[in-house]
Amino acid sequence: MVNIKYIFFDIDNTLFPTSEFSELARKNAIRAMIEIGLPIKDSNKLYLMLLKIIEKLGSNSDQHFTQLLRELKIKNPSRYIAAAIAAYHNTKTSILPYPDVPSTLLNLREQGYKLYIATNGNAIKQWDKLIRLGIALYFQDVFVSEEVGIEKSKEFFDKVIVFLNIKPEECVMIGDKEENDIYPAKESGFNSIIRKDKYKKNQKSLANFIVSDFFNLLDIIKKL
Amino acid sequence: MVNIKYIFFDIDNTLFPTSEFSELARKNAIRAMIEIGLPIKDSNKLYLMLLKIIEKLGSNSDQHFTQLLRELKIKNPSRYIAAAIAAYHNTKTSILPYPDVPSTLLNLREQGYKLYIATNGNAIKQWDKLIRLGIALYFQDVFVSEEVGIEKSKEFFDKVIVFLNIKPEECVMIGDKEENDIYPAKESGFNSIIRKDKYKKNQKSLANFIVSDFFNLLDIIKKL
Repeated sequence: MVNIKYIFFDIDNTLFPTSEFSELARKNAIRAMIEIGLPIKDSNKLYLMLLKIIEKLGSNSDQHFTQLLRELKIKNPSRYIAAAIAAYHNTKTSILPYPDVPSTLLNLREQGYKLYIATNGNAIKQWDKLIRLGIALYFQDVFVSEEVGIEKSKEFFDKVIVFLNIKPEECVMIGDKEENDIYPAKESGFNSIIRKDKYKKNQKSLANFIVSDFFNLLDIIKKL
Repeated sequence: MVNIKYIFFDIDNTLFPTSEFSELARKNAIRAMIEIGLPIKDSNKLYLMLLKIIEKLGSNSDQHFTQLLRELKIKNPSRYIAAAIAAYHNTKTSILPYPDVPSTLLNLREQGYKLYIATNGNAIKQWDKLIRLGIALYFQDVFVSEEVGIEKSKEFFDKVIVFLNIKPEECVMIGDKEENDIYPAKESGFNSIIRKDKYKKNQKSLANFIVSDFFNLLDIIKKL
């Protein structure tokens, strides 16, 4: 039996409730546009329009609000764009980790584990989240797909293993997405733990364990 | 004698101490890069390098920190860029008006004056400042050079006068810069008031009045 030495974490919806903050940020942005005088006052209608635009342009576009105001035929939209972006960023910069995360990370470091991030996305944006969450210093290194050169996949995890010169059987990948986190890590020889909402815990997973929080993560890792 | 009806304000260093916040934001950004592990720890040296880069690229570039890290030959600079930008924005989004500003704006509105902004710069950035300062709603309209189509000049003020269908002699322009605020407004027929630090109050100005704060602005405007 091999002991786990290296623990890899995904960020979004694994270390903090990304989706909840995104929804709140968008709704706050719409409320701010109405507050500053947007002639359309129906926030539900605006939110649904915004969701369609996000689907069309992709979530990483910075043109969501510009496009919304274009579709609303608003002239001189700067005041509304500024209000939306300020409210959006105020919310996005106030992100908090899941309550079980900071103490778990500290505990794992105390126990001698090496901690890493394995995440898809833009390197600066993903680093920004770690810094805002106040947990960046817990990680020995951070692997973002943009810098690794490939999205999370068997190749991604193979590259990480070679770079760190470690064995995959000494590693565990912890994430929320079967297709991005569990499956490719498993293909590369990692152990894996999936984080799922409580009410989804009965769904099947290829992961070694399913958890809904990290309060017992140390015990679970010791069982691997 | 004509009474003043319309009051135009510049934003930067007129409604809040822009330069002080910019300096603090840059210094906080450098401290954040060091906190997250930048191998160069001399914050004074880094600040001077940054100032040179800002001078070279212009203050509106978004590449200041990227360029700094390039000159420092830092590999995988995302963590430092993210830390710098987060600290910079945290400071920039915490801007506060000069203490005399909000009560003065409210008082002027109560007295029946119409308030406007006349500012150079990017429309969204200038709106962002008004929103962060919590004073956007005081203004009937906001004229930003980007949207007016020309930087503050006689032509800028002439255009504003035509757009609002008002007389320049019923207007006063209040700003901190002789060349951007006072001279061109005067050329267009406006009255003008310049805001200067106390220790610079003895310098000459083409403005009708020199003030170091707005606590007596109402009385001064009544004298025009």
